[in-house]
Amino acid sequence: MQEIQINCERVLGDLYTLREVGKYKNGVHRPTLSEADIWVRNWLKDQLNSIGFKSKIDGIANVIGYSPASGKKLLAGSHLETQNRSGWLDGVLGVIYALETARAIHEAGGHELGIDVFAFADEEGHFGSFLGSRSLIGQVTEKEIDAARDRTTGVPLRKALLNAGLQGVRRELLNPERYLGMFEAHIEQGAILEHHAKSIGVVETIVGSKQFKVIARGQQNHAGTTPMHLRRDAGRAILSVYQRLETVFSNLTSESTVWTFGKIHFYPNQPSIIPGHAEMTVQIRDPSRDVLGSLKSELQRVVEEEAESSPCDLEMKIESESAPARMDTDLISILEATAAKIAPLDYIKMNSGAGHDARTLSAIMPSSMMFVPSIGGLSHHYNENTSDEHIKLGARIYSDAAIAMISLANLNL
Amino acid sequence: MQEIQINCERVLGDLYTLREVGKYKNGVHRPTLSEADIWVRNWLKDQLNSIGFKSKIDGIANVIGYSPASGKKLLAGSHLETQNRSGWLDGVLGVIYALETARAIHEAGGHELGIDVFAFADEEGHFGSFLGSRSLIGQVTEKEIDAARDRTTGVPLRKALLNAGLQGVRRELLNPERYLGMFEAHIEQGAILEHHAKSIGVVETIVGSKQFKVIARGQQNHAGTTPMHLRRDAGRAILSVYQRLETVFSNLTSESTVWTFGKIHFYPNQPSIIPGHAEMTVQIRDPSRDVLGSLKSELQRVVEEEAESSPCDLEMKIESESAPARMDTDLISILEATAAKIAPLDYIKMNSGAGHDARTLSAIMPSSMMFVPSIGGLSHHYNENTSDEHIKLGARIYSDAAIAMISLANLNL
Repeated sequence: MQEIQINCERVLGDLYTLREVGKYKNGVHRPTLSEADIWVRNWLKDQLNSIGFKSKIDGIANVIGYSPASGKKLLAGSHLETQNRSGWLDGVLGVIYALETARAIHEAGGHELGIDVFAFADEEGHFGSFLGSRSLIGQVTEKEIDAARDRTTGVPLRKALLNAGLQGVRRELLNPERYLGMFEAHIEQGAILEHHAKSIGVVETIVGSKQFKVIARGQQNHAGTTPMHLRRDAGRAILSVYQRLETVFSNLTSESTVWTFGKIHFYPNQPSIIPGHAEMTVQIRDPSRDVLGSLKSELQRVVEEEAESSPCDLEMKIESESAPARMDTDLISILEATAAKIAPLDYIKMNSGAGHDARTLSAIMPSSMMFVPSIGGLSHHYNENTSDEHIKLGARIYSDAAIAMISLANLNL
Repeated sequence: MQEIQINCERVLGDLYTLREVGKYKNGVHRPTLSEADIWVRNWLKDQLNSIGFKSKIDGIANVIGYSPASGKKLLAGSHLETQNRSGWLDGVLGVIYALETARAIHEAGGHELGIDVFAFADEEGHFGSFLGSRSLIGQVTEKEIDAARDRTTGVPLRKALLNAGLQGVRRELLNPERYLGMFEAHIEQGAILEHHAKSIGVVETIVGSKQFKVIARGQQNHAGTTPMHLRRDAGRAILSVYQRLETVFSNLTSESTVWTFGKIHFYPNQPSIIPGHAEMTVQIRDPSRDVLGSLKSELQRVVEEEAESSPCDLEMKIESESAPARMDTDLISILEATAAKIAPLDYIKMNSGAGHDARTLSAIMPSSMMFVPSIGGLSHHYNENTSDEHIKLGARIYSDAAIAMISLANLNL
């Protein structure tokens, strides 16, 4: 077996190739199971087949490449779809790092080094919450799939799967015994690395998040002829909840807490009509279970109290909840040692404010994550970017750390 | 000439016929220049032609029926299109009252009694603000038409006019010399008549209204990885303006003031993305010019002050402004006398909280308006309704008052 050498130019080349598929301004519009997304999934499958992997797209659109090696495998990868009109590296970077590591092992003849390459479906939540990785660990029911619709277009997931030729295809279930653990690389999507002038982030904890929808039901009416005291304005009822939350949350949160009102809808959303129905999404994230719990309780209390005084009916629905996940200390140590060798003093340990498939998989196997910087901290935006130098440095550290993880796990057997 | 007798069953029959065109639940979905809307405009034109009127649809979709009579005419009518998925009587009632009055005059051989029947285009503001009536008094430029788009579908007005076969058709201009004045009947769209248990409203003033858009420009970003203190959240910036306005407006307004935040948009409006752009519509209505002026100044002050402390750019745009309009005292007296005769003690004088084409036309001729009750005050909703008894009573008073207006004006010459 020769020395394993990744090809950084090939990494950049692949990333630039995929940037063209669904290109939007400087970024990409490639929602889950769109035509562009399906093209990219097949592209990855073909790449993996060409280096002797048994690859497939499973019944929920996970791309899965099984290594032919014996021994414990490393599960490596990330996701391929993007947010709507969003960035070119979010997800894809981690998939290409995994693919390149597999190719380099293959080219060096390292057939005993097992690395399975995955692209988890719908990490970006077009149809649900981490559907691909949750399906792989048995958390997604057929009923959930029946009910799932694209949050932008309303297209049912069943129909999208049918269009992609995936109807009736089996959904893969992971066997934890096959794996030593999982390793995901990702862009940071924040500005912490840049703020500390570091090139690599070694992730210790992925924050937990809870997402709620507050719904108000009032009475749609004419905005000119209905006196203020007779209105049942669902828009105002929702905004009144917002007002209270701004104060309540500010008093309960730490520096690592974030909360977001990202989505709001008034119906019928016309200037001259009092909204009869309104909805607002409230999302909270924190590395601490306790903080998440108390924010949720406060939200429930505020909605209940507002409901008592409001002329509208108010309701709070839980849309998703995920617990914070600690990364595996052994895998982190290997990653840190690799970073320390290749980029001495140029890395930090940090938390991930974003959720990732590594959080899902940490429920059944040791998991680990690595970040490269996002320029200006910008992400979920078509101007999202990372310097070529950081992309290449990340590829080298990812690949060396992955090989070390596999080697050590199999030595230990 | 025989006695002029309207046919109340024919009024109800026509209303029920038009309720079927674009039917939606109990109401109607018939936006301006939709297929259903164009059908109804042609229906009205044909009805008017059949009683010897010279009728046409002008270049902005006003339906205009010129009476063959000599002498001063009464301009009578209202509008045919509806709000989206809205009520069946809003607008149509006043058009059918005018049509029935013209038919009854025709059938009685009263050819010297001049009544022009109008259906003003786009009173509901799908493409602009009172486009039809404003065009008739010379207030709409070709440039405004070039820029106008359907607020729901985004279709350009030019394209909609082309589809309707109205491209290149001349827009009519009213000659005030032709008219003694105008008279519009409408459902109240509020609950004041019901509250006072009265059947007819004699309108004294149509309130003025001002509509603004507040726009915030921030930075779209990932909701998990961007700490609170680094965010430029356009959604929060808009909601902060809302919060201030709720307090400020409450201190400045009277019982007859209404203000509405009916329309709000976050971009991209996704739970996990910090909004980079947000917009909110603020609409205020009041019978007093002074109150409208001070509310506008306060809005400007709030937006300016918020802009100084906000991490986002804030801007306020004027979308429309209309002054309060007093109805003509002579025409009101005739209407009141008619109501007092047919429905003694069953009417009140009141203001109109909604804008109407009568407000536009009051700029060039004496104008008047009459209301019938809305059940539960409900309007701009598919359950909007008025009892058959009130519809018939309104038709009789409208028709008698219209004939009295025409007769008196021509006697006075």
